[in-house]
Amino acid sequence: MPADQVTTRRVLRVTRDGASVLDDALAVERALEIRIDGQPLVVTLRTPGHDRELALGFLAAESVVRSLAEVRELVECPAACADEPDRVDVSLAPGTPVDWARLERHFAATSACGLCGRAHLESLRAGLVPVDSGFRVASPALLSWPERLRLAQAGFARTGGLHAAAFAGADLVPELLREDVGRHNAVDKIAGALLDQGRYPVGVGVLWVSGRAGAEIVLKAARAGIPMLAAVGAPSSLAVELAEAARMTLIGFLREGRMNVYAGAERLGTDTP
Amino acid sequence: MPADQVTTRRVLRVTRDGASVLDDALAVERALEIRIDGQPLVVTLRTPGHDRELALGFLAAESVVRSLAEVRELVECPAACADEPDRVDVSLAPGTPVDWARLERHFAATSACGLCGRAHLESLRAGLVPVDSGFRVASPALLSWPERLRLAQAGFARTGGLHAAAFAGADLVPELLREDVGRHNAVDKIAGALLDQGRYPVGVGVLWVSGRAGAEIVLKAARAGIPMLAAVGAPSSLAVELAEAARMTLIGFLREGRMNVYAGAERLGTDTP
Repeated sequence: MPADQVTTRRVLRVTRDGASVLDDALAVERALEIRIDGQPLVVTLRTPGHDRELALGFLAAESVVRSLAEVRELVECPAACADEPDRVDVSLAPGTPVDWARLERHFAATSACGLCGRAHLESLRAGLVPVDSGFRVASPALLSWPERLRLAQAGFARTGGLHAAAFAGADLVPELLREDVGRHNAVDKIAGALLDQGRYPVGVGVLWVSGRAGAEIVLKAARAGIPMLAAVGAPSSLAVELAEAARMTLIGFLREGRMNVYAGAERLGTDTP
Repeated sequence: MPADQVTTRRVLRVTRDGASVLDDALAVERALEIRIDGQPLVVTLRTPGHDRELALGFLAAESVVRSLAEVRELVECPAACADEPDRVDVSLAPGTPVDWARLERHFAATSACGLCGRAHLESLRAGLVPVDSGFRVASPALLSWPERLRLAQAGFARTGGLHAAAFAGADLVPELLREDVGRHNAVDKIAGALLDQGRYPVGVGVLWVSGRAGAEIVLKAARAGIPMLAAVGAPSSLAVELAEAARMTLIGFLREGRMNVYAGAERLGTDTP
């Protein structure tokens, strides 16, 4: 894990028995600006590391790029001082149009999460591309994931403050794991890694997230063509509705040797109740 | 708890020993549009309930309103059908200016969280109003909060999928608790409740959150004039920096009879290490 993902700080530990001073590890949260052809698109707060993947995944989720061929160059520019954001400059390939008016409409109505600008359910559902693959999974392979992935979450182990996302392809062996203070960022980093490898949309596999499954995570997975989303935490009602609309499999509470299947149980060789 | 905050769904529970069908409670996530004087400002995904407070708290966090006197009328309009967002129509008092250009600039650069539009650290810090009250707390009173507040989280108990925020004034007795699928929404509902009671900015008290303390939560607390933020989870590095700049007390990992103090320990009668 890169050193700039975790920082150490002297803190006061208080218990009923008194107080003591100790060094605590904190997850780093810093601003990153993404520019397209010199024009600022977005500033996001993220944990440094895999910024290229974060930018690619964000642009793919926003339908700005659909493949690596549409990216002419991507340059990472660390900030010169602590008070400025880091920057990723993306140049698009000639002939790749950017619909700035559409992006501005998107962002114009956005608040506490990236989804909100598109939040009329009708348009949400209209934008969903059903993930229609023959991908199938045997349940026992999934039930062992929590223990395996916990070992891989180096940042969480040190700070308790990082979300994680992971991806496994058809062989169900987790091959990508990314951590970030922002859970949506962790998913963007996975999607960006797939795009970077020429595998977007990917069509098979499982996206695992360390927290809850909200509507936006389902949308990002659907856009990346990932047929199955498995969350350690709870799904929301809208997440289940969108997963059904996208013909995805949605699993929640994957921990302690069990899981709940909320949609698409046929991929596990059974019927959805 | 209102019935529309939780919905029930038939799911498949899978363990290593086999599968069974059961009814599971899900946190409801639905779109809410906030309009000002007829013009759409934002669509957010939230758990229904306390929509008035959510709208007021959101508008206060965005500096659109500073007191209830600036709100002429607020009307809640439930959607006529499931595919449309619910709506809150806010009419501002005559003479309350709305700087739409500024709001558009805010939102123009917003992605995965509401903070991002303002994410240049310099402007973040410039917008911070130091919370400079003589508010002091005895540690033991805080250490008992986790157990007390867990009992009050009715939605979490049923779904495992709701974040919570709570507020206690000078007497340290939790007086407000709000739940939402979005942790920023839960904080906005608290801030909106304070505004609704004519107590914004409030100047004393503790904001408690059930999850982690990121930068945006610190900013919302600072704007509401709450001198102390206590989180069950970890703070990020930027959250600590912003809390220091706002002269707030920031507590993390408040659970199991202990807590870590990251900034402003003087309010607990000791020095910050």
